[in-house]
Amino acid sequence: MEEIYYMRLAIELARQGRGWVNPNPMVGAVIVKHGKIVGQGFHKKCGGLHAERNALADCQTPAAGATLYVTLEPCCHHGRTPPCTDAIIKSGISRLVVGSFDPNPMVAGKGISILRSHGIEVIENVAKEECDKLNESFFHYIQNKTPYVVMKYAMTMDGKIATHTGRSQWITGSEALKHVHEDRHRYSAIMVGLGTVLTDDPMLTCRLENRKNPLRVICDTNLRTPLGAKIVTTTNIASTIIATTIMDTNRHRPYLEAGCEIMVISQKDNHIDLFNLMQRLGERQIDSLLLEGGGTLNWSALQSGIVNKVQAYVAPKLFGGSGKTPVGGLGVDYPEGAFQLSKPVITQIGDDVLLESEVIPCLQD
Amino acid sequence: MEEIYYMRLAIELARQGRGWVNPNPMVGAVIVKHGKIVGQGFHKKCGGLHAERNALADCQTPAAGATLYVTLEPCCHHGRTPPCTDAIIKSGISRLVVGSFDPNPMVAGKGISILRSHGIEVIENVAKEECDKLNESFFHYIQNKTPYVVMKYAMTMDGKIATHTGRSQWITGSEALKHVHEDRHRYSAIMVGLGTVLTDDPMLTCRLENRKNPLRVICDTNLRTPLGAKIVTTTNIASTIIATTIMDTNRHRPYLEAGCEIMVISQKDNHIDLFNLMQRLGERQIDSLLLEGGGTLNWSALQSGIVNKVQAYVAPKLFGGSGKTPVGGLGVDYPEGAFQLSKPVITQIGDDVLLESEVIPCLQD
Repeated sequence: MEEIYYMRLAIELARQGRGWVNPNPMVGAVIVKHGKIVGQGFHKKCGGLHAERNALADCQTPAAGATLYVTLEPCCHHGRTPPCTDAIIKSGISRLVVGSFDPNPMVAGKGISILRSHGIEVIENVAKEECDKLNESFFHYIQNKTPYVVMKYAMTMDGKIATHTGRSQWITGSEALKHVHEDRHRYSAIMVGLGTVLTDDPMLTCRLENRKNPLRVICDTNLRTPLGAKIVTTTNIASTIIATTIMDTNRHRPYLEAGCEIMVISQKDNHIDLFNLMQRLGERQIDSLLLEGGGTLNWSALQSGIVNKVQAYVAPKLFGGSGKTPVGGLGVDYPEGAFQLSKPVITQIGDDVLLESEVIPCLQD
Repeated sequence: MEEIYYMRLAIELARQGRGWVNPNPMVGAVIVKHGKIVGQGFHKKCGGLHAERNALADCQTPAAGATLYVTLEPCCHHGRTPPCTDAIIKSGISRLVVGSFDPNPMVAGKGISILRSHGIEVIENVAKEECDKLNESFFHYIQNKTPYVVMKYAMTMDGKIATHTGRSQWITGSEALKHVHEDRHRYSAIMVGLGTVLTDDPMLTCRLENRKNPLRVICDTNLRTPLGAKIVTTTNIASTIIATTIMDTNRHRPYLEAGCEIMVISQKDNHIDLFNLMQRLGERQIDSLLLEGGGTLNWSALQSGIVNKVQAYVAPKLFGGSGKTPVGGLGVDYPEGAFQLSKPVITQIGDDVLLESEVIPCLQD
């Protein structure tokens, strides 16, 4: 399975772009000639060269007659950079092995067609599942124009995100915490509700070196975020958007002066219309969002249908009591009405367990 | 690793005694001569022959000069059956390979010493961890004289054991349910509180063919179990003990007439002294108990220090709301005060996940 081997190599390369390429997809490419790797590359940063062009530039010998392995169908449109199909045709590459099909309506099979029409042999769907997994947020964003939303929480093995006194630091261990910070780098934005700001006064930044901070989004229906809150006073470190239903510009002013952005959002069921907020963030090229809210915001997010994935970190400890749980709100009346999730992908992180599931969309809404 | 191979075979044999041998341990034995298995056996039922004697009886050729693989140190005392050491010496077995050391104070290394003093070569600790795992409840019981308590619950991925309307059927899928019923066969008793009886009116029996029912134990401080409850009206199918602090024999009578047993237990913090109840059940040779209580009983059990293991079945769904959680009661004030559990053993059962951890005993109590 030589093809799988080179494609996995391309996937490894692609991963190096994680967190830097958004809202573009992560892509890796490997060029093989006479059984030898002659060039490799990946998409490093939004606005920079695509993986295919980086791999071609890396070639020590002419790529003519070689096979190009690429995790995602090459683009054929003029975006921030010229089409990769042009560069591939020009290089004389004779065979292309592709992982994912690009659902971007501007590509969507056209890239492959163009290459075939130029006599290049194209093999599709190699390690497709692994390649698709790499870009689940891109695939969602390009088709829906709203961010891929990951609802993340850390709970005890008895389902508590805080003790009955409201204390939550710390539930999981340091390795799980590092994992969360990797995700703060990976996703374009992070969102919490006013409740979390009032209780924890968090920074919501990525605490790892050589990583980027996500855009911070606060759901604050009635614009009650304290001006002394860290997310207001540290806009020199990371951007902050306060989403509110309050239209009074006099009330916006102090936040604007502190460097925050105010996003006025329509109201729905006494809180911000979260779907509308996602559309607005999508317009801002926010392709992915980590929801680190409390139970109330999590419930609203689920109800609004904006949640795509759930990440539950489970710590081997028990709090007992009537502490807060990951999803609050009204709740469903009957087990049959539950929000259904896919079979979890399980990862053991230190002593903790990470369960990751996709939210299965409701059919009747 | 021939030794590991035969020992694993002996472990497989031992497992066939699961649920039938209590309060004895599960034990398997394999006899190997000139590289061939000449006999094998396991302990089938409490009161029946031990594994070593079953294996010897199974031998087609004389066992003299053979190697005996046995998962647990052979007994050297007269219990329900005569000592196995006698049978082994008499058989002419020349080499013994042992998994677990028997912590039973009546054996505890003496079995091995006796065999060595008769010139039998003894190799200890082969696949010890796996052999120990087989009998965690026996090891606890023989040293503490109280049942090994497994706190089992099924919750959603947001930590709910019921919706806010109190509905809990069903949270997990059919495969997880089958797993629970296997455990109802495996452990000697099952315990719930009055709350569960009033809400669910459960049978608490094992719903699988060719399995046994556990002894049903109800914690009912003030003796308020309805006489029409299934656990009262079905004592012809499975035994029921009602543990209460009520001493008035007039109030006991209707339950006794229905075939239940009443166990009067001292009071502690307004409920049954659960540690005392465990002692009493231990006297009755109940070596293991599955705690299928609600949040209140689970909290009391943890507080009493009687819980040895936690089994959390987690279903990929979300209820939201203020539904019940697995452990209620007062709860701990701070994360540092949490009940600590060991790194979970993870099993995927259908779409559900089973997390199993041991309770790490508190140092200061």
